[in-house]
Amino acid sequence: MIETALLVVIVICVIALALAAILARNLLSQDEGTPKMREVSDAIKVGAEAFIKRQYSTIAIIAIILAVVIFAVYYFTGQQSLAMYTAFAYIVGAACSAVAGVVAMSIAVRTNIRTAAAAQHSDGKALDFSFRGGAISGLIITSMSLLGVSLTYIALGADPQTTPFVIIGFGFGASFVALFAQLGGGIYTKAADVGADLVGKVEAGIPEDDVRNPATIADLVGDNVGDCAGRGADLFESTAAENIGAMILGVALFPIFGVNGILFPIVMCALGLLASMIGILSVKGKDGADPMDAMNRGYYITAIISAVFLFFGVQWLLGSTTGWMYFFYAGLVGIVLSVCFLRVTLYYTDHHYRPVKEIADASETGAATNIITGFSVGLETTAVPALLIGASLILSYWFGSMTGIPNGGLYGTAVATVGMLMVCAYVLAMDTFGPIADNAGGIVEMSGAPEEVRKRMDSLDAAGNTTKALTKGYAIGSASLAVFLLFNAYMADIAKLTGKAFDVVNLASVPVFVGALLGAMLVFLFASLAIRAVSKTAQSVIEAVRIQFKNPAIMAGTQKPDYAAVIDITTQGALRNMVLPGILVIGFPILIGVTMKHEALAGFLMVATITGILLALILNNSGGAWDNAKKFIESGAHGGKGSEAHKAAVIGDTLGDPFKDTAGPSLHVLIKLLATLTLVLAPLFI
Amino acid sequence: MIETALLVVIVICVIALALAAILARNLLSQDEGTPKMREVSDAIKVGAEAFIKRQYSTIAIIAIILAVVIFAVYYFTGQQSLAMYTAFAYIVGAACSAVAGVVAMSIAVRTNIRTAAAAQHSDGKALDFSFRGGAISGLIITSMSLLGVSLTYIALGADPQTTPFVIIGFGFGASFVALFAQLGGGIYTKAADVGADLVGKVEAGIPEDDVRNPATIADLVGDNVGDCAGRGADLFESTAAENIGAMILGVALFPIFGVNGILFPIVMCALGLLASMIGILSVKGKDGADPMDAMNRGYYITAIISAVFLFFGVQWLLGSTTGWMYFFYAGLVGIVLSVCFLRVTLYYTDHHYRPVKEIADASETGAATNIITGFSVGLETTAVPALLIGASLILSYWFGSMTGIPNGGLYGTAVATVGMLMVCAYVLAMDTFGPIADNAGGIVEMSGAPEEVRKRMDSLDAAGNTTKALTKGYAIGSASLAVFLLFNAYMADIAKLTGKAFDVVNLASVPVFVGALLGAMLVFLFASLAIRAVSKTAQSVIEAVRIQFKNPAIMAGTQKPDYAAVIDITTQGALRNMVLPGILVIGFPILIGVTMKHEALAGFLMVATITGILLALILNNSGGAWDNAKKFIESGAHGGKGSEAHKAAVIGDTLGDPFKDTAGPSLHVLIKLLATLTLVLAPLFI
Repeated sequence: MIETALLVVIVICVIALALAAILARNLLSQDEGTPKMREVSDAIKVGAEAFIKRQYSTIAIIAIILAVVIFAVYYFTGQQSLAMYTAFAYIVGAACSAVAGVVAMSIAVRTNIRTAAAAQHSDGKALDFSFRGGAISGLIITSMSLLGVSLTYIALGADPQTTPFVIIGFGFGASFVALFAQLGGGIYTKAADVGADLVGKVEAGIPEDDVRNPATIADLVGDNVGDCAGRGADLFESTAAENIGAMILGVALFPIFGVNGILFPIVMCALGLLASMIGILSVKGKDGADPMDAMNRGYYITAIISAVFLFFGVQWLLGSTTGWMYFFYAGLVGIVLSVCFLRVTLYYTDHHYRPVKEIADASETGAATNIITGFSVGLETTAVPALLIGASLILSYWFGSMTGIPNGGLYGTAVATVGMLMVCAYVLAMDTFGPIADNAGGIVEMSGAPEEVRKRMDSLDAAGNTTKALTKGYAIGSASLAVFLLFNAYMADIAKLTGKAFDVVNLASVPVFVGALLGAMLVFLFASLAIRAVSKTAQSVIEAVRIQFKNPAIMAGTQKPDYAAVIDITTQGALRNMVLPGILVIGFPILIGVTMKHEALAGFLMVATITGILLALILNNSGGAWDNAKKFIESGAHGGKGSEAHKAAVIGDTLGDPFKDTAGPSLHVLIKLLATLTLVLAPLFI
Repeated sequence: MIETALLVVIVICVIALALAAILARNLLSQDEGTPKMREVSDAIKVGAEAFIKRQYSTIAIIAIILAVVIFAVYYFTGQQSLAMYTAFAYIVGAACSAVAGVVAMSIAVRTNIRTAAAAQHSDGKALDFSFRGGAISGLIITSMSLLGVSLTYIALGADPQTTPFVIIGFGFGASFVALFAQLGGGIYTKAADVGADLVGKVEAGIPEDDVRNPATIADLVGDNVGDCAGRGADLFESTAAENIGAMILGVALFPIFGVNGILFPIVMCALGLLASMIGILSVKGKDGADPMDAMNRGYYITAIISAVFLFFGVQWLLGSTTGWMYFFYAGLVGIVLSVCFLRVTLYYTDHHYRPVKEIADASETGAATNIITGFSVGLETTAVPALLIGASLILSYWFGSMTGIPNGGLYGTAVATVGMLMVCAYVLAMDTFGPIADNAGGIVEMSGAPEEVRKRMDSLDAAGNTTKALTKGYAIGSASLAVFLLFNAYMADIAKLTGKAFDVVNLASVPVFVGALLGAMLVFLFASLAIRAVSKTAQSVIEAVRIQFKNPAIMAGTQKPDYAAVIDITTQGALRNMVLPGILVIGFPILIGVTMKHEALAGFLMVATITGILLALILNNSGGAWDNAKKFIESGAHGGKGSEAHKAAVIGDTLGDPFKDTAGPSLHVLIKLLATLTLVLAPLFI
């Protein structure tokens, strides 16, 4: 018999999928614009689908090898009964994550053309279409994550005290695919972008998105495969990992709450999905208005409704203890944290505030000062988020302790994480809106649409840049909390395996300290490899474009450049260059765990996470700030386009590209991957 | 009665000071070159002395306030007897550190002119003079550190079981002054450098070190106050802190080794000083030869003699246990580590190897790719050093454990640290050689000396760049080991104060995890403020120079620019901008310790250290690599001076300036400051 709570989850997910289907049908029936627009859009679609197909083939091979490893680890450490189950959960998680990425990408490449067409008449409509495109992704990804966890839980026996330890395979599968999806997509998108800019804008002196540049289509494809597919997989994984981590902590509370404590996280996420649906439907574009206003309003509606649902959810599932209100407060901490993270990111990446203004000012004395200032801003952005994460952990732990139940403190942090992830579907909608608007802008530009249409798209594109930055802030904030749960899940898992309490990770012992040092190092090394992969792949793109530019007919605009050739080269480069960093971050922790054992590995994991969170903030925010400083100058400040300040700002922006769209987001995934990896391979480390 | 071991230390220090005096007398009797050279050199001397005077006045005020705080902390936590002693040790440490910085600077400003004069005839002589100038600093700084610790130990009662806990004040005083010396000097040197370059080379299009540029003298002053005074204070502090940390660990071994275990570290450092003297005297310049050859040979001689002394020292002081040979092996680990660190740094910052070549290649596609590649190299440089530090800790701990005595493992890491620091005086000589050669080059350039003299100085200058990078690698490596000792000293101190064992820092507990997160954050925030201070001060320099450039007589070369005005503005800016980051890194850990108590503070300290080591590596090595990529292009590669690749490389080099000469070296000091601060204020945190 299925629990009522599980039924609620499944029903809400079905509603969300139905809503997504309705939105999609409505969207697909819209006008597809001029033939020229369709031509561009079709090229993007073909390129994106070709990349995704090849990318997932590569990922599938590595995934299957790992499935065998997981099976073997359990089989040969005397846990034959778990071997098949864990490997099964892993494969389901990996498959769901892949589907989530493909869905996000497919919707995006169909929405961009319709947004471009709508922009011919109305910017309100263009916002509606692009945001709904994002919403479809958000709804599908979130419900797939919840359904995946719930159905796997049921399929694996639905025993509240043992099943949570088995479905960690699902979380690892999701992380694994997310890593490669984000890394490969991130390399692709920025190699194409940097390559197109350097060889087009800098060398040949033609504008961005100029049809003569053979790398433009690859650049537009990149937005889809990097931003849409990548972040889709990232937040899919966050939800899955957080749910599983919280369920494992719930096992410790089984004597108090029974199965309710274990199902609590997924129920709350489902209620959050419901709140997000209301928020999504409240967003309505208005001609001439700032698109951010409508989206921000929708966000606050989602957050407030989530808080209300949180109250009732806590009362329903955890109300059997007298101090349950404290769990509600802990959940509120998570919701408030999500709002704070968005505000802080806005401050650091929006041109209305000091940091971006300072970078724009510094551009007047050249690229060096632009970059020095931007990098210093990036380093600075670690301060407030770290204080916020620290305060949230302490506060939610304290609230949890006030409930008076054993392990209540830890469960308080789980409830805070749940609170933060309730708004996830809405955030995903905002996030995917960004690349759709970006793509629609590119289509408008390349199809030679009139000036007013371009202007309409510019404001939407700027909003997209902002939402992309904001949602990265949210992703890293929620990842920090989720990972803290996973640490504790790992320790619970080790304790279960060894039959001995494992609640101390002694940083003062030499192996743990060395593990911690190597964990922090891995994060920097991984970022190095990710950034290097972009510049290597960009180099191939540049060479391919240069060859075509030697053809005078292409430069004269009388012959169409060979877009497919550049797409092909970018695809190959991105896939080749994602393998080394990917294998490093899987192999190195296994090596540490096997040689230095579980406590040193815990030190490794925790300090890698701390460093990963902070480095991701630095990379995301400095990149976002450079980008917006450039856009601010392009809007006319400091001499506007073509000025010396603008040239300097373009260099800063180019540097920021691999920071904010390759290395930064890949780090989000990395920290969750490390946590799920250690969890699933725990038997190796004891 | 004074122990024989202490007598040995004092005698060796006196010999070292005598050798320094002989070298100095010999050096000062040399030719001071042409009147034009003297004019430049005098301006540098006046500027440097004015800065140092004002800087140390500022530092003195903050230092006195802190002395009162330290006194109060001990007085009001019921340790009246320690209050006066600790405050006294702190003041002595601060004063010695200040003197060390002043001495290093004074020698440098007197050696540069003599090196420039020697370069008129012979490059071998120029090397001899500049290296001996560095050697004088190295000998004086190292012997002052050893004498300071020894005499304070005697003055405070020389009780082997309690005095080590009191002289931690000495270490904190040294760290405190070193922080401000390095930070203020680092801001000064790079603000002047960046300002002079941007406004001179980029805006006005005149060459580096051109007499018409009013910022050139400030730039040359900067080399002295930043590099000489800064690194002098840095390594003074390393030696002092390491000695004190190791002495505290020796207290735990008192039942086995008696006072010998406590005096072992300072005796070994004194023997290392003796080895360094031999190494220094072996360096002999040869016309036409690569200056690096002579200095490298001297280094290996020092290392080998140190290893021999290590053997006899261990036998003498620790020979009472049967497994003493294992301590010798642990010490060897330290000596080998110092060699490895130099080799790795060389690989990453020398143009003969892949990394710098890659950056130079990437300059062909512009500044953005130059910087992307350089930053990725910087991130990569964390990998091998982290593995080396980790391996050294584990290995020396293991050797220590093999001795079979209790706490032997920890003492093994102390012996490794001692081994690494034995070569310190020689490394300081190599390090101070760099800015002296750099300054001499500037004097030659500004005095309009003939082409052949400039050529001679160029090769010396290039060697100086290499040694500066190498010794930064050494400084961070030795700091990592020294800080690990200080952690353990802190824990021993807390245990002594509370009367309860304190040997677990549980990273899995919420407060410790949050402390760790905030520790890592502080490092990034500090780096941000340090970098920002440079760009703020550089902005003032640029404005001051622009005003003078409006005077056509200055640009025509008929009127001498007002060098003093720029020096004054740089001095003011550097001092103003060093206060905020300085107070932050002192105030924030105190706040954490007072509110979250000693265990969370330990987590803070350890993860701040890990992050600090890795970030310092990134900043130092990327900065060094950018610098040498530029120099490589200037030597004719990729189109040479004036090419597009060169312009790109100049931008990378400018970005690298505050990385490698302000933020990076300040982080070395920061991590030791945090360790000594927590140690000395421990009574506040229980």
